[in-house]
Amino acid sequence: MDIGQLLLGRPLRRRDAGHEEIGSTEGLAALSLDALSSVAYGPEAIALVLITAGLGAMHYLLPISLALIGLLLLLVLSYSQVIDAYPAGGGAYAVSRANLGKNVSQLTAAALVVDYTLTVAISISAGVEALTSAFPAVQPWALEICLVVLAIVTLMNLRGVGESARAFLLPTLVFIVGLLGLMAWGFLHPAAAAAHPLAAAKPVPLFFLLTAFAAGCTALTGVEAIANGVPLFREPRQLRAKRTEWLLGGILALMLLGLALLTIRFAVSPGGAQTMLSKVMVAAVGHGAVYYVVALAITMVLALAANTSFGGLPLLSSILARDGYLPHVFAMRGDRLVFAPGIYVLSAAAAVLLVASGGNTQALIPLFAIGVFTGFTLSQTGMVVHWWHERPPHWAVRAGLNGLGALATGVATLLFVVTKFTEGAWVVVVIIPLLILMFRGIRRYYDRVGAVLMPGRTPAPVNARPRPMIVVPIEPRLSELTRRALDHALSLSDDVVAVAILLDPESDADPTEASVRQAWTDWAPPVRLEIIRSEYHSVIRPMLQFIDGLTTKAHQRRLVLIPEFVPDSPYGELLHNQIGTLLAAALRRRTDVMIALVPMHLHQEYVPSPAAGVDGGA
Amino acid sequence: MDIGQLLLGRPLRRRDAGHEEIGSTEGLAALSLDALSSVAYGPEAIALVLITAGLGAMHYLLPISLALIGLLLLLVLSYSQVIDAYPAGGGAYAVSRANLGKNVSQLTAAALVVDYTLTVAISISAGVEALTSAFPAVQPWALEICLVVLAIVTLMNLRGVGESARAFLLPTLVFIVGLLGLMAWGFLHPAAAAAHPLAAAKPVPLFFLLTAFAAGCTALTGVEAIANGVPLFREPRQLRAKRTEWLLGGILALMLLGLALLTIRFAVSPGGAQTMLSKVMVAAVGHGAVYYVVALAITMVLALAANTSFGGLPLLSSILARDGYLPHVFAMRGDRLVFAPGIYVLSAAAAVLLVASGGNTQALIPLFAIGVFTGFTLSQTGMVVHWWHERPPHWAVRAGLNGLGALATGVATLLFVVTKFTEGAWVVVVIIPLLILMFRGIRRYYDRVGAVLMPGRTPAPVNARPRPMIVVPIEPRLSELTRRALDHALSLSDDVVAVAILLDPESDADPTEASVRQAWTDWAPPVRLEIIRSEYHSVIRPMLQFIDGLTTKAHQRRLVLIPEFVPDSPYGELLHNQIGTLLAAALRRRTDVMIALVPMHLHQEYVPSPAAGVDGGA
Repeated sequence: MDIGQLLLGRPLRRRDAGHEEIGSTEGLAALSLDALSSVAYGPEAIALVLITAGLGAMHYLLPISLALIGLLLLLVLSYSQVIDAYPAGGGAYAVSRANLGKNVSQLTAAALVVDYTLTVAISISAGVEALTSAFPAVQPWALEICLVVLAIVTLMNLRGVGESARAFLLPTLVFIVGLLGLMAWGFLHPAAAAAHPLAAAKPVPLFFLLTAFAAGCTALTGVEAIANGVPLFREPRQLRAKRTEWLLGGILALMLLGLALLTIRFAVSPGGAQTMLSKVMVAAVGHGAVYYVVALAITMVLALAANTSFGGLPLLSSILARDGYLPHVFAMRGDRLVFAPGIYVLSAAAAVLLVASGGNTQALIPLFAIGVFTGFTLSQTGMVVHWWHERPPHWAVRAGLNGLGALATGVATLLFVVTKFTEGAWVVVVIIPLLILMFRGIRRYYDRVGAVLMPGRTPAPVNARPRPMIVVPIEPRLSELTRRALDHALSLSDDVVAVAILLDPESDADPTEASVRQAWTDWAPPVRLEIIRSEYHSVIRPMLQFIDGLTTKAHQRRLVLIPEFVPDSPYGELLHNQIGTLLAAALRRRTDVMIALVPMHLHQEYVPSPAAGVDGGA
Repeated sequence: MDIGQLLLGRPLRRRDAGHEEIGSTEGLAALSLDALSSVAYGPEAIALVLITAGLGAMHYLLPISLALIGLLLLLVLSYSQVIDAYPAGGGAYAVSRANLGKNVSQLTAAALVVDYTLTVAISISAGVEALTSAFPAVQPWALEICLVVLAIVTLMNLRGVGESARAFLLPTLVFIVGLLGLMAWGFLHPAAAAAHPLAAAKPVPLFFLLTAFAAGCTALTGVEAIANGVPLFREPRQLRAKRTEWLLGGILALMLLGLALLTIRFAVSPGGAQTMLSKVMVAAVGHGAVYYVVALAITMVLALAANTSFGGLPLLSSILARDGYLPHVFAMRGDRLVFAPGIYVLSAAAAVLLVASGGNTQALIPLFAIGVFTGFTLSQTGMVVHWWHERPPHWAVRAGLNGLGALATGVATLLFVVTKFTEGAWVVVVIIPLLILMFRGIRRYYDRVGAVLMPGRTPAPVNARPRPMIVVPIEPRLSELTRRALDHALSLSDDVVAVAILLDPESDADPTEASVRQAWTDWAPPVRLEIIRSEYHSVIRPMLQFIDGLTTKAHQRRLVLIPEFVPDSPYGELLHNQIGTLLAAALRRRTDVMIALVPMHLHQEYVPSPAAGVDGGA
């Protein structure tokens, strides 16, 4: 068992794949942590806007939260329909590809890629920030801790999605049960009411409320992940995925509602070193063990929210690769049946973001909301088109719901871009078109390749050709390698020519043309020898000139047979000149020249040639 | 003309090689700057020891300089004899290889490698130090300037030794003529005598004088370089090389003598920011233009002393490579006929030393003297053995001279090791054995390879073999690439099997076993098709299992023919999965499997197969 297997586990058979597929509850750990953990910062973002209009404005937290919950349920409903309609996964991308055409689907894909990549960096640094607030002593190693968490999440996902879901299930459950229980306790416990209730509400301008609403929309990011990752679920896939989607919607709605009510009940306001969620928790249960356990679970869930991207992006990139927008290698499953290249690229991109920002990714938060909400808007719009085409029973109601969702999320997207443009949203506006250009460039290349290869079409018939002319580059000094090369060459064709490049001798021990000819005559193989004197101190150039200048019979091809000594250690590679490799690379650029490599090993036992005439070929 | 040719010049023909060979005067610039420039620090090193016994002890500078000049002439004489006896170059290494056996010659080689490498770093940093003393403003960029000088010297040497010698000729001549002329002026000009002559000499202990002598021996480093580089000279090589050797000896002796006499005449003492040589120059000609021109030439010559190593080490390493102590690539000449790998490695090692020491290599000076004097001692000893074996006329006198030299340099080497051990000489004592271990490891490897290849021996006869069984890995979806592969395979043998690895289909568009068989039947090539269903999500593993499990006819070999799509840009490489490359790499580790690569280009014009039967092969 090598180190790779030790870290990643043994290769999985296709029939063991079920082991790595997930159920509804595991789906929460695998694909919902991004959405659930946003309860730790979404409501706070609303309150931070409201508080600028005075403490009384905090009363608007409840109606805004209700509006947010309404949008949440609209999105959950919409994505349930997406799961039914596009069970192959890909979510917003699949919807827009099917309904909105190539160009829009490329936009959707680019938005999702930005969203997923930023999610990893942001959630890990948010989790580590929560940790370093609790333990300031580890603050200096914040970036290092971020990278270790990233490495752990990456490794778990390389082992398989199921593995990571099961590993992250416990903190997820502690988070959900703990936070909901704590909220219930806050309502039921009479001693917990606030000493100083909030001042009465005063009217505020509508645009102000819209801004607060838009700020709170970050709490909805991640709702799309389940629809993107349907193929990760065990059969019946669609049912399990929808159950997870509704479970997520219900829990998140409860949490948002509870948090809004308790904030008002305890007259908690945002600001200071402590988060608003933390203040509410302290007001409900005090600074006891329960508080610490739930706080720790929140920290872990924030960091593990990165897992959502690892569930979504590799799958999305495999779909994009199949559509020819990303290199095909992204569609190849590894030994553990995961799309490993997508995982590596995502992890590397997140590591770059973390290092570049020094582990402080606050500034990135508005950027990633833009990606998410662009995806929301496009998938909802796509669903409206979908219903228009399909027209199942109640299609008008469904289309209406999706249309409403599209409108709401579209407005929110515009609000983000406008209000956050100078804060860095322009980066997204630059990166998304660049990604689209890349998708198109890759697709154009594959289209050109397809035009040459014509895959799927029955190829032209294969006809007989004469045996090729074989060129065997040899060293002027004959050796077992020469014998081996000619032995192999003669088994392929009878038209063989050996070529030696002769440099000017530098000492008496160096071979001369006469000595090379003499040695050849002594050996007497049934092969013609060409000796080329090199004017330059180069072996490759005259060899290529010779090969290019060969006259062959009609339809006869050329084959260059390169004997190669294969050392038994990597150090050994340094001790052989790489002329064979260089020659092969140069020939690879030529059309219609075959290259044959004859490896010879240091530990190879000497196998004598068979006696002449024993079933000799051709 | 590409960027490489722009920097390095066009490739040279062997018959143009004379262009890059050097004459006697150019030899001074190419191989003597190390020795000549040491006049800038050698006498100062003596004076720094003497001054500790009072100003009166400075009178001993003259006898010690005379002793040094005696040793110098002994060395010059000895190396002239080396040039005659070993005109192929290699100097001390060639002498000890011929006379002192393998083990001692490895020690000599290691000492020379250490010497040459340290010389580059030390001389460049010494030159730049002289420059930064003159212009303190550039002090902060000392390391960067060092690296730029290193890059220039490296580039000049990659263009060819002759090129660098001609480029460095002018500063060399200014240095020699300027410094000798300045000294002559110092003697002839009556006003220049010292106002306060030195106090009378007092007796000092012998060991003290020996230490001063040993310190001055650094002035002799570099005397060996000409004998190491004989092949760099134009014909008649030996004559020109000897002429350069004597020219160097005469000039260096004159400079050492003149400096000693003038130091005493002007009562100059070492210490302070100014070097002793600079004080003598000021005393002789004042702070005028002459002073500045000569000082600049000294600075340049100090830095260009690095050139000596570039003349010597690549040639030495080519000899070591021919002897199997270094990778063979070191014996290969590049387009410009220089031993480029040796130049690169020397330059890289010097850059590492410069960066590691921050451009301050003072501490390395004693280290490199050890390497040089070990070489001196061993070559002199070897010459004694040489004379003993050859016994030409006057051999006893010659052997006596060399024996005396061996004794003197041997004592100096021991003095270095003992007095400088704690100052870092232990590093040399560690590195030299490590280098010897490396030489031996490489030689052992080449001996093993030689036992397998038996180069130079007439190989066993080549006998006929049956045509190989050809395995063509194909993609389940037929394409032009498949046709091309089979077309090539059938021109090599009639025993062809196509193998497709089938993974579980992930979508309806993926090929199934039935669809692959059907497409094959529709196409109907004269080739058997094997479909392997992969349990794991891997293509390489089942392919290797299949190839390993093939049953062949007696003496029949297997050939795996891998069709490869060659993109027209480096980006294109990223867009193709590298399965062919991975498979070829895995097969290379196997014995007795040939690998044939069939490249196909994106811009390849479609060449239809010839009609069946047109001079079909076999």
